[in-house]
Amino acid sequence: MPASPQPKTAAGRFFEDFKFGQTIRHPTPRTLTSGDASLYSALTGARFAPQSAETFARAIGYPTSPIDDMLAFHVVFGKTVADISLNAVANLGYADCRFLKPVFAGDTLSAVSEVIGLKENSNRESGIVHVRSRGLNQRGETVVDYVRWVMVRKRDPSAPAPETHVPKLPQAVGVADLGSACPRIDRAAFDAELSGSHDRFEDFSAGERIDHVDGVTVEEAEHQTATRLYQNTAKVHFNQFSEGAGRFGRRLIYGGHVISLARALSFNGLANAFHIAAINGGRHVAPLFAGDTVFAWSEIIETAPLPGRDDVGALRLRTIATKNRPCADFPGYEGDAYEPHVVLELDYWALAPRRL
Amino acid sequence: MPASPQPKTAAGRFFEDFKFGQTIRHPTPRTLTSGDASLYSALTGARFAPQSAETFARAIGYPTSPIDDMLAFHVVFGKTVADISLNAVANLGYADCRFLKPVFAGDTLSAVSEVIGLKENSNRESGIVHVRSRGLNQRGETVVDYVRWVMVRKRDPSAPAPETHVPKLPQAVGVADLGSACPRIDRAAFDAELSGSHDRFEDFSAGERIDHVDGVTVEEAEHQTATRLYQNTAKVHFNQFSEGAGRFGRRLIYGGHVISLARALSFNGLANAFHIAAINGGRHVAPLFAGDTVFAWSEIIETAPLPGRDDVGALRLRTIATKNRPCADFPGYEGDAYEPHVVLELDYWALAPRRL
Amino acid sequence: MPASPQPKTAAGRFFEDFKFGQTIRHPTPRTLTSGDASLYSALTGARFAPQSAETFARAIGYPTSPIDDMLAFHVVFGKTVADISLNAVANLGYADCRFLKPVFAGDTLSAVSEVIGLKENSNRESGIVHVRSRGLNQRGETVVDYVRWVMVRKRDPSAPAPETHVPKLPQAVGVADLGSACPRIDRAAFDAELSGSHDRFEDFSAGERIDHVDGVTVEEAEHQTATRLYQNTAKVHFNQFSEGAGRFGRRLIYGGHVISLARALSFNGLANAFHIAAINGGRHVAPLFAGDTVFAWSEIIETAPLPGRDDVGALRLRTIATKNRPCADFPGYEGDAYEPHVVLELDYWALAPRRL
Repeated sequence: MPASPQPKTAAGRFFEDFKFGQTIRHPTPRTLTSGDASLYSALTGARFAPQSAETFARAIGYPTSPIDDMLAFHVVFGKTVADISLNAVANLGYADCRFLKPVFAGDTLSAVSEVIGLKENSNRESGIVHVRSRGLNQRGETVVDYVRWVMVRKRDPSAPAPETHVPKLPQAVGVADLGSACPRIDRAAFDAELSGSHDRFEDFSAGERIDHVDGVTVEEAEHQTATRLYQNTAKVHFNQFSEGAGRFGRRLIYGGHVISLARALSFNGLANAFHIAAINGGRHVAPLFAGDTVFAWSEIIETAPLPGRDDVGALRLRTIATKNRPCADFPGYEGDAYEPHVVLELDYWALAPRRL
Repeated sequence: MPASPQPKTAAGRFFEDFKFGQTIRHPTPRTLTSGDASLYSALTGARFAPQSAETFARAIGYPTSPIDDMLAFHVVFGKTVADISLNAVANLGYADCRFLKPVFAGDTLSAVSEVIGLKENSNRESGIVHVRSRGLNQRGETVVDYVRWVMVRKRDPSAPAPETHVPKLPQAVGVADLGSACPRIDRAAFDAELSGSHDRFEDFSAGERIDHVDGVTVEEAEHQTATRLYQNTAKVHFNQFSEGAGRFGRRLIYGGHVISLARALSFNGLANAFHIAAINGGRHVAPLFAGDTVFAWSEIIETAPLPGRDDVGALRLRTIATKNRPCADFPGYEGDAYEPHVVLELDYWALAPRRL
Repeated sequence: MPASPQPKTAAGRFFEDFKFGQTIRHPTPRTLTSGDASLYSALTGARFAPQSAETFARAIGYPTSPIDDMLAFHVVFGKTVADISLNAVANLGYADCRFLKPVFAGDTLSAVSEVIGLKENSNRESGIVHVRSRGLNQRGETVVDYVRWVMVRKRDPSAPAPETHVPKLPQAVGVADLGSACPRIDRAAFDAELSGSHDRFEDFSAGERIDHVDGVTVEEAEHQTATRLYQNTAKVHFNQFSEGAGRFGRRLIYGGHVISLARALSFNGLANAFHIAAINGGRHVAPLFAGDTVFAWSEIIETAPLPGRDDVGALRLRTIATKNRPCADFPGYEGDAYEPHVVLELDYWALAPRRL
C-alpha cells in the first residue's frame, strides 16, 4: 500500500521557511484551570501566597488567585515549539519578557509569534531566527510577551540567504514596563505570617546574596508530566528510544522546568517576591537530567521603586541553579567560565510589597 | 484472635457467578472535573483543540470543552474491573463501543454491565463472559456503551456449565450510529491555525497511511497515576511485589493507557480528527512496560459522510502502536503475524470537520 | 562580594526557640480545589463514594463532595513543618486528632499551632515539643485539630532548660467528640451497589480482622508529587543529594502518604467507612522507600453508636500497613516487637451508615 499522498504531519520549519516580518499563529489554545494550578504546584513546589490562597489574593487586591507566572509562560512557550524550534540546533536565549496581564483560572491562552530577526550562519547550513512571541487571553489581551532566538537548520544548504536582521534587545526590561500584571496591592493586608516572610522591598539591597538552601531531585515522570502539562512537544524531553542513541544518552529536562524549580526553591528567602514582572534574560548553562538534584541561590542586582506606585517595588534578581551542589558559597563563575555544576542563570524582575 | 467471621473484601466473580442476562451496577460513581482533564492531558499528551480550549469548543458549537472521549471511556471501564475481570485469565477484546453523549466537567459517571454471553471452555476450568457495559451520566443518559469479553476462571471446575450464548457483534459500528455525542459543528469557525491542521474530512482517503512520528517513553509513576485516575484497580498495574514473581516480572501497563498515548501521538497528522465517535475493536497485541517508548501510525480504512449532516464526516482509522520502534515504514503484519514490536491495533471512527 | 547582611531564609526553630503557650501562625494558606482532589485520588487511589461523586454526596446529605479527610489533614500538617519540625530529630507521634468540619473544594485552609508541652532531654542536646495544631477554613472555623510531638535539637546545648510541661493526651478521642464533620446522613440513600459494600455499622464487631488484599508499589515521582501537593517541605522527602549521604541513603517517603495509601487500600473491606472522624494515634514503625509495595489490614477495636444519632455509627479501627509482605495472616506483633515488615500502625475512628 502506498504511503500518504500528501504529508499531514508537521515537519517543522527550516531556516529558509522563516520570512522576516512573518506572523505565525500557533495551535492549540488552552484553557487554564484550577486543575492546572494544582498540578503545577505539585510538580514544582510553587507556594507563593497569592497564587496559593484565594483569601490572600483577594485581601491584597487581586480578584482571585492568579495563575503562577511561570505556568502561564510555559503554556505560551509550549505552543511555539512545533512551529519555531522543532528543527532547532540550539535554543540560544530569551529576552525582553514582560508579564502584562494577570492570568486566572478560566482564561484561555493562545500564542502568536512574529519573526523579528534572521541571520544565516557563515557555514550556510543553519541560521539564527529571532521571534517575538505573545500569549493572548480570550479577550485578545497580551498577557506575556517575549523574544527568543534559536539556531535552525536549513533544509537545503544552497537555499539563498535572507537579508540579515538582528533585533536590538534591551539588557533588561525597563522599570516603567513593570507592574502592569499586578493590581494595586493593599500593603497593610500583606500578612507576613501567612506569606512566610517579614522582608519587604526596602529590606533588600543590591549585592545581597541569598542561598535558597533546599534541594529537589527530579524524576523522569515529573518533568515529562510537567512538560506535557504545557503541551510542549519537543522530542528531546520524552523519547528515550531516540535520545538513548543521542548526544547525552538521556532525555533532556525542559529548561523551563528548571526555572520553575529554582523559582519554587527561592520561596525560602524570597517568599514576598510574589510576582515575576519580567525576565531580562536566561541561559541554560548545562543540561539537567532525571536523578539530578537542583539547588539555587539569588543575588539582588538592583532594587527599583515603580514609577507612580507606592504599593510594590521591583527587585532585579539573578538566580543561579546548580545540579548536585549546594549553594551556600554562591557558586557562579570561576574566572570566565561557569562553575561546572551550574545549570541555569536567570535575570528577572520580581515585585515585593513595600513597607507600611 | 479469629479472622473476620464473614469476608468483607471483594474476591471478584468467577465464571460460574455470572448469569446470562444479569445486570451489575458498579461502584464507585465519579464526578469528572477540570482537574481530571488537566491530569489526563498531562499524563497522556492529549491536546485536541476542542478539549483543550473552551473558546475553541464554544466557537464550533459545544457548550464548553468536552472531556476527552478516552478519559470518559477509561473511567467507565475502570469501574467494571472489580466486578467483571478481577479473576480474568485474559482480556480478549472489545467491540461495538459507541460514544453517545458528550461528557463535561461536572458530570458524574456511573457504570452498569449486562451479561450478554457465556461459554464454558472445553477444559472446564474457565469460560468466556461477554458483557455490555454502559456509562451513565447524572441524568441517567448513556454516554458510552461497549461490549467486552474476558476469559474468567471457574472457582470450581466441576460446577455445571451454563447454556452457551455468544453474542453477534458488528465488525464495525454503522455510520448511522455515529455522531450523537457531537453537536452540529460550525465548520467556518473551525480555525485551522488553532486546531493544528488544514486537513478536513475530504482531505483523507481510504488506504492513506500517516506516521505520527513522535515517540513517548512511559514511566511507572505515569501509568500508575493515570490508572488510579480512572479508579481501575486491576492488580497487575500496581503491585510489583506480586508481579515481580509473575509471568513478566514487571507491572503491566493498562492497555487503555496505551490507547490514550497512541491517540495523543496521532495529533501529529490527525489534529482535526477531534472526536472519537466509536471504537470498532481493539487488540492489545503485546504487553507494554515502563521504560518502553511508544510510537504509532494510522491508516485510513474508510471515509464516510454522516447521514443528514454536512458539518462533520467520519474517518475509520486503524491505529497501530509499537514499542521501541519508529513507524516510518508502517509496521503491522509480517505474513500472518504481527511485527514483533506491535503492542496495539485499534480500529475506530473519528469525526473531522468537512470542507466549507 | 559579601553574603547577605541578614539571613532571610528560614533556619527553623531549635528547642530553645519554643516557648510554652506560644502561638505560631504558619504560611502559606491554600485554597483546595477539585484539581487537588483529582490529584489526591490519582496519587493515592482514594475512591470512597461520597468523596468521588457529587451525586452520591448530595443524595446522602452533604451539600457536595467533601475533600478527602486525609488530604485536608496533610495540607494542614504540611504548613506546620517549616515552623515546627525543620530541626526535628524525630517525629514521635500524634494524638487527639479530630475532624470538626467538612472541607469542600473552594475552601482555603490555614494553620495555627500552640506550644502545649516542653521537656528538655537529660542529655541537654535536644528536647520534646508538643504542639496542638489547628487547620482553619476561610471563615475561621477549625476543620481539623490535633496534637503532635517531636524531638528537636537545641541550637546551644548550654541554653537553659524551660519549665517542663507534658500534656495529658487521651488514649482515644471520645465518642461524644465524633461526627461534627459529618452531616446527618440519609441512610436509605446510601446505595450499597454504588458505595461498593453492603456492610453497615452493625455488620462490624470488635475483634474482627479484615485483610485489604491489594498491594501498591510507590514510585519516587508519586510520593514527591503528593508531598508537594501538601506543600510539605521536609527535606528528607525530596533531596537525594543529601539523603544519599544520610542514614538510609534514600529519600524517605512522607509518613502521611503511607497513611493515605493504607486508607485507600482499606476500601476493599471498609468501603462504607466513608469518613475519618478522628485519629487516636499513629506510629510510623519503619521507613518506607520508593520501590516498596504497601499492603494493609485492619482490626475493629470497638464499635460505638454516636450519641443522639441514628444515621451513622463509629468504628474504631487499627490499621497496620506493611511493606513487601501481604497481610492475609494479619502481621502485627511478634512478642513485644512489631513484625519486621510493619511500617505503620494507625488507630482511628471512621463512620459508617447504620442499618435501615
